[in-house]
Amino acid sequence: MKTVYLDYTATTPVAPEVLEAMNPYFVERFGNPSSIHSFGEDPLEAIGEAREKVARLIGAAPQEIIFTSCGTEANNHAIKGVAFQHLEKKGHIIVSAIEHFSVWYVVRRLQKWGYRVTYLPVDRDGMVDPDDVAGALSDDTILVSIQLASNEVGTIQPLKEIARIVKEKKIPFHTDAVAAVGIIPVDVKELGVDFLALAANQFYGPKGAGALYVRHKTPVVPLMDGGAQEDGKRSGTENVPAIVGMGRAAELAMERMESDAARYRSLRLRLIEGLTERIDQIYINGHPEKCLPNIVNLSAGYVEGESMLLFLDGEGIAVASGSACTSVSLKASHILTAMQVSPELAQGSLLFSFGRETTEEDIDYVIEKMPPIVKRLRELSPLYEKHARMETKIAAAKE
Amino acid sequence: MKTVYLDYTATTPVAPEVLEAMNPYFVERFGNPSSIHSFGEDPLEAIGEAREKVARLIGAAPQEIIFTSCGTEANNHAIKGVAFQHLEKKGHIIVSAIEHFSVWYVVRRLQKWGYRVTYLPVDRDGMVDPDDVAGALSDDTILVSIQLASNEVGTIQPLKEIARIVKEKKIPFHTDAVAAVGIIPVDVKELGVDFLALAANQFYGPKGAGALYVRHKTPVVPLMDGGAQEDGKRSGTENVPAIVGMGRAAELAMERMESDAARYRSLRLRLIEGLTERIDQIYINGHPEKCLPNIVNLSAGYVEGESMLLFLDGEGIAVASGSACTSVSLKASHILTAMQVSPELAQGSLLFSFGRETTEEDIDYVIEKMPPIVKRLRELSPLYEKHARMETKIAAAKE
Repeated sequence: MKTVYLDYTATTPVAPEVLEAMNPYFVERFGNPSSIHSFGEDPLEAIGEAREKVARLIGAAPQEIIFTSCGTEANNHAIKGVAFQHLEKKGHIIVSAIEHFSVWYVVRRLQKWGYRVTYLPVDRDGMVDPDDVAGALSDDTILVSIQLASNEVGTIQPLKEIARIVKEKKIPFHTDAVAAVGIIPVDVKELGVDFLALAANQFYGPKGAGALYVRHKTPVVPLMDGGAQEDGKRSGTENVPAIVGMGRAAELAMERMESDAARYRSLRLRLIEGLTERIDQIYINGHPEKCLPNIVNLSAGYVEGESMLLFLDGEGIAVASGSACTSVSLKASHILTAMQVSPELAQGSLLFSFGRETTEEDIDYVIEKMPPIVKRLRELSPLYEKHARMETKIAAAKE
Repeated sequence: MKTVYLDYTATTPVAPEVLEAMNPYFVERFGNPSSIHSFGEDPLEAIGEAREKVARLIGAAPQEIIFTSCGTEANNHAIKGVAFQHLEKKGHIIVSAIEHFSVWYVVRRLQKWGYRVTYLPVDRDGMVDPDDVAGALSDDTILVSIQLASNEVGTIQPLKEIARIVKEKKIPFHTDAVAAVGIIPVDVKELGVDFLALAANQFYGPKGAGALYVRHKTPVVPLMDGGAQEDGKRSGTENVPAIVGMGRAAELAMERMESDAARYRSLRLRLIEGLTERIDQIYINGHPEKCLPNIVNLSAGYVEGESMLLFLDGEGIAVASGSACTSVSLKASHILTAMQVSPELAQGSLLFSFGRETTEEDIDYVIEKMPPIVKRLRELSPLYEKHARMETKIAAAKE
């Protein structure tokens, strides 16, 4: 059976070039970079090079990069690392209502601990209004965290404008950029953020490697204490092969970003046009222009996303429904809900995401296989039957 | 030049069998285990199998294993995960004075946040007295954390006895077993602990993989919040290849532990005898019997550990001085200081550790190369000169 993977936001595979770069660091150059003897030298140097490459990808200085074990750790590190500075008086934190769970559940945790959290609304395209940020700022606001782009609907936030508002008040500003880095150009200086989280497995690097950008001299309490690796900011033996892989992946992303994105945009259009032509009651979620090129989130009326997902999987097509990280939970997406997508359409949402391996043939295969699946599922839906009868009546009345 | 790696407690290489098990999960079976579609199935199953293998290694149930990114994360998770349950009233924590930095600096952090910490003394062999634990327990004690074995001097603590005392009071008991697991038999049920930390790169698994045993139903606040991976206890996309590697490494460790340990014990004796015969003023640190088989920590009088380390490195011999994780800091070991080793001898300490690749020839090479290095360094030491003159006088007086 043909298999078509369209769930690259859940994870990319490791690029062959990346695995090749990692390989020597498992067995031959296995030393601990903290060791003084010669076995530590090569790994230490390799980490330094990877740090430069990752820094370059986001316009940072190498010493502003902390390597972490994943994007989730990077988000936890930034947010808790600021919150821990205010354990006594706690304080106020602002996030958007459509943050990834690795931000969302972190601030939920802090709420339980006595911090006050504002969840900023978004419009129907998933966009935060910078004026809302300005309006939410308070004397005790200790942190603002707004994602750069949504891994679920692709909407890219007006981060530069938001950062300017937040930084005027000298409040630390964090952004979860996991879905954006490696896909679109990201420059921390241009954005004006203090913290930025990224993950290697979003751009063909390995799992087990993430990073947190911390603007020079910005205070942050480590999430992990111990042997003072990463300049004391993240203890724990460095995952050398993964870090080396992340560096190589960053390098590749810089080389390929422009051409990859152009290809994604054309695949995106092809998929949207192909499906909307063949299936009625299809809605695209997310901002029509200000969005990641590699994501299509759509809702189909009168059909459940989970059912579509499983039937598509039966045809060898892998897509996500809601946030991939918790697709095991099958809850309605808090993101679509915040965008005022009706519960029915939110339940009927599917997330397609493209990668370097995605071809026009893959898209055409989806366009071929999906309509009959939706048709079959709708035949089981009494609501759709009612809707179809109404449509027929309206058409008859028009004649 | 011959190279002899004797710093296995800093990190082991990845065993070839382990890398072989990991390899398919980078590129081919790259899916996210949280995905519902088919690409998630194989990785999810592989993690389940790895969890069983790691659980078996320490006598736990699979659902009691949380995979982490390293031993440091596991220690942070256990200790902070208990402390976070007492953020309002804080409370009292007991540790030994010879904990690894990933415990030591965690409780230091908690001290800054208002928790009270007792550092239990050890005897000259590095042994904690269970009576001291009993004496230190207080009404507000929220956690006791005592290592199973020292990665620096090898001393194995009377953990079963200590656990019984702690558990009588229904206080959570954590042990950092990073240096012990994979080297000596460890059984969580027999030990009677609530938490136990281990790291794959201590037993030929990859860097980037650790685990925390959490006894069934023991409450612990996650260090990382997010997509609810690891049954909600550790969020973040699972590092599938590393976890698979840790499982394979656990399996190999079980197969090989007994024969490896027997070989290490004989290498240990060979090294100790060879060096003490050829170098005067040598002291072995750590308990003479209750110790890990793969570690020799020795102090040589009238010579600095760092200098020996560098000269040995010049001969291709890699050893550690003090805790490998912070050998970049060059501070005197807090562990040897707690064992009342004099500052001079603590500064003159070297840590040799053995692995599967270590041969008798390697040991003999050290026995050949080290005495002239010590001799040369001592020739530069005015104190040693004085000592030698004294010895000559005493010998002359005796005649």
